[in-house]
Amino acid sequence: MSTRRAVVLRRRPVGAPTPDIFAIEESAVPTPAEGQVLTRTIWLSIDPYMRGRLSEAKSYAAPVPIGGVMEGETIGEVVTSRAPGFAPGDIVVGPRGWASHLVSDTKFLTKLPRDGAPLSTYLGVLGMPGTTAYSGMTDIGRPKAGETVVISAASGAVGSVAGQLAKRAGARVVGVAGGAEKCLYVQETLGFDECIDHRALDLKAALNDVCPKGIDVYFENVGGELQRLVFSRLNVFGRVVMCGMVAEYNDTEPRPGPNLMMVVRNRLHIQGLIVSDKPERFAEWRALATPWVRDGSLKYREDIIEGLENAPEALVGILGGKNFGKLLVRVGADPTPRAG
Amino acid sequence: MSTRRAVVLRRRPVGAPTPDIFAIEESAVPTPAEGQVLTRTIWLSIDPYMRGRLSEAKSYAAPVPIGGVMEGETIGEVVTSRAPGFAPGDIVVGPRGWASHLVSDTKFLTKLPRDGAPLSTYLGVLGMPGTTAYSGMTDIGRPKAGETVVISAASGAVGSVAGQLAKRAGARVVGVAGGAEKCLYVQETLGFDECIDHRALDLKAALNDVCPKGIDVYFENVGGELQRLVFSRLNVFGRVVMCGMVAEYNDTEPRPGPNLMMVVRNRLHIQGLIVSDKPERFAEWRALATPWVRDGSLKYREDIIEGLENAPEALVGILGGKNFGKLLVRVGADPTPRAG
Repeated sequence: MSTRRAVVLRRRPVGAPTPDIFAIEESAVPTPAEGQVLTRTIWLSIDPYMRGRLSEAKSYAAPVPIGGVMEGETIGEVVTSRAPGFAPGDIVVGPRGWASHLVSDTKFLTKLPRDGAPLSTYLGVLGMPGTTAYSGMTDIGRPKAGETVVISAASGAVGSVAGQLAKRAGARVVGVAGGAEKCLYVQETLGFDECIDHRALDLKAALNDVCPKGIDVYFENVGGELQRLVFSRLNVFGRVVMCGMVAEYNDTEPRPGPNLMMVVRNRLHIQGLIVSDKPERFAEWRALATPWVRDGSLKYREDIIEGLENAPEALVGILGGKNFGKLLVRVGADPTPRAG
Repeated sequence: MSTRRAVVLRRRPVGAPTPDIFAIEESAVPTPAEGQVLTRTIWLSIDPYMRGRLSEAKSYAAPVPIGGVMEGETIGEVVTSRAPGFAPGDIVVGPRGWASHLVSDTKFLTKLPRDGAPLSTYLGVLGMPGTTAYSGMTDIGRPKAGETVVISAASGAVGSVAGQLAKRAGARVVGVAGGAEKCLYVQETLGFDECIDHRALDLKAALNDVCPKGIDVYFENVGGELQRLVFSRLNVFGRVVMCGMVAEYNDTEPRPGPNLMMVVRNRLHIQGLIVSDKPERFAEWRALATPWVRDGSLKYREDIIEGLENAPEALVGILGGKNFGKLLVRVGADPTPRAG
């Protein structure tokens, strides 16, 4: 194949993005310079944080420029290498872009085993989302046996791991997810103690019902009304892992937040988390969790979209909670025996 | 004197309290039981947190019951002792009440030296407010050389110490206070780098002007509009010591807070503080700061009200920022040579 396909950003969205803010561009497959590798993309990860890259608003990473290739993590196979230690056939994961072929320096690439866990898991349960959950629970949430832990977006790539880690710590874990099917999965497969369907129920009554002793740890992925309700139920010395607020990413004006006097009264600890701040956590988590993925004790679910051309639609969907599990785009054939 | 005077709570305030929610009651001086001491009160501390004790709303301490003696920290002299280790003439500090005479168990009393710092300082710069500032800066704020630290209620008992600690750590310290006289004191006497008069100025423009590199640490004593403005200027890895929100204590409905997406983006650490959670900090701070008070390097200012009967008016005043420095009521004669 001598053509490279890439998804570029045509214009910035106002409010909810639509697929037509992106365009597919075809060009010649690029050639690596000295110190670089050329890979063909196998898997592309779609994550809620990508909404931030579409906006010009100041954030922790620069926005994707208009006309630029959309950013994202991929798993790829090395086609041509001009870098020491990388050879054709090597499988690599790294923060790269929405394209069928990518050329990059190797400093941000991590080589993956061909006979480890399924390759796709290195973008999900063993990758950035899993590491985010691990970092957040280790550094901020610190759930203890008997505590009540609430996880928003509980069936998602981050929430599903965060909740299973809290269960391993002996906590009582309450998920919040959208729809009966997701809630069933959260309780039956992931093993959370409870799951609240935020679409079907009176959230306030449901939280009171399943958190009679208040809430000790909140893993925040969504924001919105749930945030306000959970904050007012946090116990003394409660912790909040501020990981994301996907329900507000398409807002054009920021909504007000909860009154913070409860932070004083209850000596809450609220802390924001960006997984790349502690890059050492990635390898740590892969080492810890790979055996759990292989023995089946750490559950995960993937929602696979076929074809790079459908990545824009996938991103629009994840911002509305349409995905069910870790959202991935299959861009090219997976050459490993454990293909997802 | 065989009469005891005490300030009791007659009814709960709605919104801003008025002095007539309290009444003075006279009764016979009480007699200590075995294990207790009787003290006569010398100094009574008036602090913003006392607003919380007037309300029935759930907080970290139970409200003062209707008809009950108002709570507060005092310094007193032992008149009669039925407890080992305490003798008439001993000076004690502890969380007690608004009364000329008090009987208590000794477990919450700390004996003070007669020849240390002025007795009144054990309620202010060396007491609960000073320890609060020390705890907050040590455990949460952790200011570093070159960082920008903003202190609200900067001329107050807590803020004045918090800012001086940040200066000792090499930070650039910006105070916010109400009125030109307080601001002059904060800069000239306390040695802060800047002080913003929140009454006179366009707060937003003033913050931009004196915090051109953003804000790394915020010591929060007031809440309100200032909180929203400071939060939106916090730098990556910023810390917020949530100590109090006095500007909102008289609100009948909680105001909305700042949108919390900035907590994720900037990996903020926001944490509430109640000084009594770490009681060991009191002695630690007294040992550290007594030499600084005696050598004059740690500045403080006291606002002294004469007579227990004026304590209600003093509390009403502190909630509106009428005090200038640590607010104290002189209830009885100070027998020490260093009387404030």
